[in-house]
Amino acid sequence: MSAARMQVLSSRNVRLLSRGRNEVFAGRSGAQRPGGDPRTRSLTCPPLSSSSSPGRALSSLSATRRGLPKEKMSENGIMSRAKVLTIDTMNPTVKKVEYAVRGPIVQRAVELERELSEGMKKPFAEVIKANIGDAHAMGQQPITFFRQVLALCSYPELLSDSTFPEDAKSRACRILQSCGGNSMGSYSASQGIDSVRQDVARYIERRDGGVACDPDNIYLTTGASDGIVTMLKLLVCGEGTTRTGVMIPIPQYPLYSAALAELGAVQINYFLNEEKCWSLDITELQRAVNEARQYCNPRALCIINPGNPTGQVQSRQCIEDVIRFAAKERLFLMADEVYQDNVYAEGCQFHSFKKVLFEMGPEYAETVELASFHSTSKCYMGECGFRGGYMEIINMDDEVKDQLTKLLSVRLCPPVPGQALMDLVVNPPQPGEPSYGSFIKETGQQPDMFYCMKMLEETGICLVPGSGFGQKDGTYHFRMTILPPTDKLKILLNKVKEFHQRFTQQYS
Amino acid sequence: MSAARMQVLSSRNVRLLSRGRNEVFAGRSGAQRPGGDPRTRSLTCPPLSSSSSPGRALSSLSATRRGLPKEKMSENGIMSRAKVLTIDTMNPTVKKVEYAVRGPIVQRAVELERELSEGMKKPFAEVIKANIGDAHAMGQQPITFFRQVLALCSYPELLSDSTFPEDAKSRACRILQSCGGNSMGSYSASQGIDSVRQDVARYIERRDGGVACDPDNIYLTTGASDGIVTMLKLLVCGEGTTRTGVMIPIPQYPLYSAALAELGAVQINYFLNEEKCWSLDITELQRAVNEARQYCNPRALCIINPGNPTGQVQSRQCIEDVIRFAAKERLFLMADEVYQDNVYAEGCQFHSFKKVLFEMGPEYAETVELASFHSTSKCYMGECGFRGGYMEIINMDDEVKDQLTKLLSVRLCPPVPGQALMDLVVNPPQPGEPSYGSFIKETGQQPDMFYCMKMLEETGICLVPGSGFGQKDGTYHFRMTILPPTDKLKILLNKVKEFHQRFTQQYS
Repeated sequence: MSAARMQVLSSRNVRLLSRGRNEVFAGRSGAQRPGGDPRTRSLTCPPLSSSSSPGRALSSLSATRRGLPKEKMSENGIMSRAKVLTIDTMNPTVKKVEYAVRGPIVQRAVELERELSEGMKKPFAEVIKANIGDAHAMGQQPITFFRQVLALCSYPELLSDSTFPEDAKSRACRILQSCGGNSMGSYSASQGIDSVRQDVARYIERRDGGVACDPDNIYLTTGASDGIVTMLKLLVCGEGTTRTGVMIPIPQYPLYSAALAELGAVQINYFLNEEKCWSLDITELQRAVNEARQYCNPRALCIINPGNPTGQVQSRQCIEDVIRFAAKERLFLMADEVYQDNVYAEGCQFHSFKKVLFEMGPEYAETVELASFHSTSKCYMGECGFRGGYMEIINMDDEVKDQLTKLLSVRLCPPVPGQALMDLVVNPPQPGEPSYGSFIKETGQQPDMFYCMKMLEETGICLVPGSGFGQKDGTYHFRMTILPPTDKLKILLNKVKEFHQRFTQQYS
Repeated sequence: MSAARMQVLSSRNVRLLSRGRNEVFAGRSGAQRPGGDPRTRSLTCPPLSSSSSPGRALSSLSATRRGLPKEKMSENGIMSRAKVLTIDTMNPTVKKVEYAVRGPIVQRAVELERELSEGMKKPFAEVIKANIGDAHAMGQQPITFFRQVLALCSYPELLSDSTFPEDAKSRACRILQSCGGNSMGSYSASQGIDSVRQDVARYIERRDGGVACDPDNIYLTTGASDGIVTMLKLLVCGEGTTRTGVMIPIPQYPLYSAALAELGAVQINYFLNEEKCWSLDITELQRAVNEARQYCNPRALCIINPGNPTGQVQSRQCIEDVIRFAAKERLFLMADEVYQDNVYAEGCQFHSFKKVLFEMGPEYAETVELASFHSTSKCYMGECGFRGGYMEIINMDDEVKDQLTKLLSVRLCPPVPGQALMDLVVNPPQPGEPSYGSFIKETGQQPDMFYCMKMLEETGICLVPGSGFGQKDGTYHFRMTILPPTDKLKILLNKVKEFHQRFTQQYS
């Protein structure tokens, strides 16, 4: 695989196929202004400016005063009304929320950008935001096919535009036919568009080697975060030592700690083993849950696989152990698998919790409660702004499932463009379709390039990929000169033959 | 105004300019399956099927049993593991949530649709869903200009397509330039894209006759619901008789009761006066808050204006009274103004709470805390599926504002396509721009048609609108025959003159 296209994360085990720089911890655009600007400040403080009419203020306030013990008379005799909502009177759980990905460092970075733009001298010329995985902001280009379909769905008049490929048009038609009034502007079902959920289910079945997936267990979400917060919301109850505890890895993605703080749940930390590439030890899970039982009621175990921020990819054995542990300790499993398509390192393979669970037999497959999460924001698509995602729930109690559907209905539906995008991610162009060639070209290294690079690395033989000469979409070639003398050519062709056999065996 | 384009709501005071049927309580597409399907059920119940291997299950479970007091041995000796998450062990506040707009009636409607499609006989041939305002699902067409810009933003290669109008291209470029990497796939700032918030602020200033609006007070949201829930979240605290109470109108839009139930806040009902077109009485507000103070801490007052579901439009006087009441009783004001563009009835006018507040002088303008909400889902746009919206906050405490920004950052950002759409709603084509004519044609009655209809109603003179003959975009004409004899023509021209003077005075 071409080094220029590769990114090594903090672990040896997972690498990101990135078409830009810093795909995973890339910066974001736009400026946050958490402190507000001076204009607002002058409006809010002091509560009554001296320019207000004392006569009017007083006459009105004299009536007002009766019911208002919290008002104060200021020095000039004008009533100063304390704010209803202050840091001391606001929701205390919101105050406990911390979100480092967009916290004080990011806020200072935004300030620094402004200061630089105003000509202030700094020891650097530019702020590079590597705080959040924002692929497009870092220069990764959107996938043409996805955006063509989204344009067609947005403005269906384009369906008669002959420059759009037929497979993009047929995808767009299928999506629009599932929308009320054939418009992305209609609400979808709260659980998500039926046909998209069907496509997600088929994608999961392919991914998991045929393990069945019921579209009724698929819930489309506003990014993965939305699904995770919703599931946590269902789980939280109790007070004091019976308060719900949720196990999360340390290091974690701070959405978890933020959501738990907001919900007032107990955060139970289990530490990943940095010495072993941030791997997960069952003994550490056991220590954490044993200690936690003294002060709360542990009810859920969150796993991030591949790890964020560690990049660690769990082995099949590890996942089995985690599932047994969850069953034994009666924990609801939450598997954050948004980086599932980001595994490229040799010897590493992504195993979904769902697949492993179902392969462990009915004792686990029919009992262990699991929610897994995916997103349109990561990997080659990197479409963060569309807020697309799904969750699959397994073995959830029927009544709880009804409650989940009801809860989701309050927010009406996830954004429909994000749902459409999720559909394209799980149902990309297939071999034989007109967009397949450009899709492969944009999403990954071309097979002929990969083949030639491997050949060079393993045999020292230098060929030229067919893509350098042009070839029919979906076909792959290489070009080899046969100038060497016959005896050398024999050796060479033998090496090519051996390599080809190994290669096709390994990758077919 | 043409009767064919009008819908009369349940109140006399507000009418909707609808291009389809039933704009406000229109049905939604897609089928919810809250009960799940039989396949799932067979997986979850019973926990261990008899087809599983007893030997394996037992051997594994014997180890498992030690830590599991809640397991039960079933009759055939196989361990039955109780679910972690059940209706009895789930978050009790979620159970209290009710959401009638998508409740049991809607679920039954979905079942009925399925039964009809399976050939079952019913006393009707079709289910017409009028439970939710889903304009496009009911046949309302999207605004061409909006969708052109969204297509351009989705697939910027279209910027070189000469069939797209220049104003659509310039809007798309402005939006894309505000996106990281010029892509809607990038995260935006948590508060929303800077340029969109600037456009919203300018829109509010125009709407409110020049009252200043600071873009820093604008937060883009995932539909109006998201903003409302976020604001309520900040306000909730305390226990028992100090628990936060929130005043909501009855009848209300059920998002309010659902959100309050989920947050565990106290719902304080104030009843609208059905005898007076569902108007709001200050005496009723006073009754409600006085009673509520005995069992909770009333901290916020929610107003829906124009009313949902009542359609009632509040007078300027009523809004002033409400603001004085909120100031006196120390209540945070929440003004749900998503139907602000749906007021067409004679003698009715929408007044924003922000404008009235600022016109009441610094005593109120500098102290009363207000959040107002708007959305892309209603009125002529009806783009529900994009989940676009904004809130404007006034006089919020600085520290609380920081907390709000932090809280919003956890969900990263609102969907960018919805932000783009919000931008177009507040910044539509202007006179002189190429799309202005088609925009006016699609969003409302054409001025020449309106003029001629008024002329007929008031004078009995029948003219023909210029649009029937074709005219340059942005210009309007009428056609009048001058066949009547001279004396009649004099009377006629005099009447036309008088009408024209009245008309231009009234509508300029």
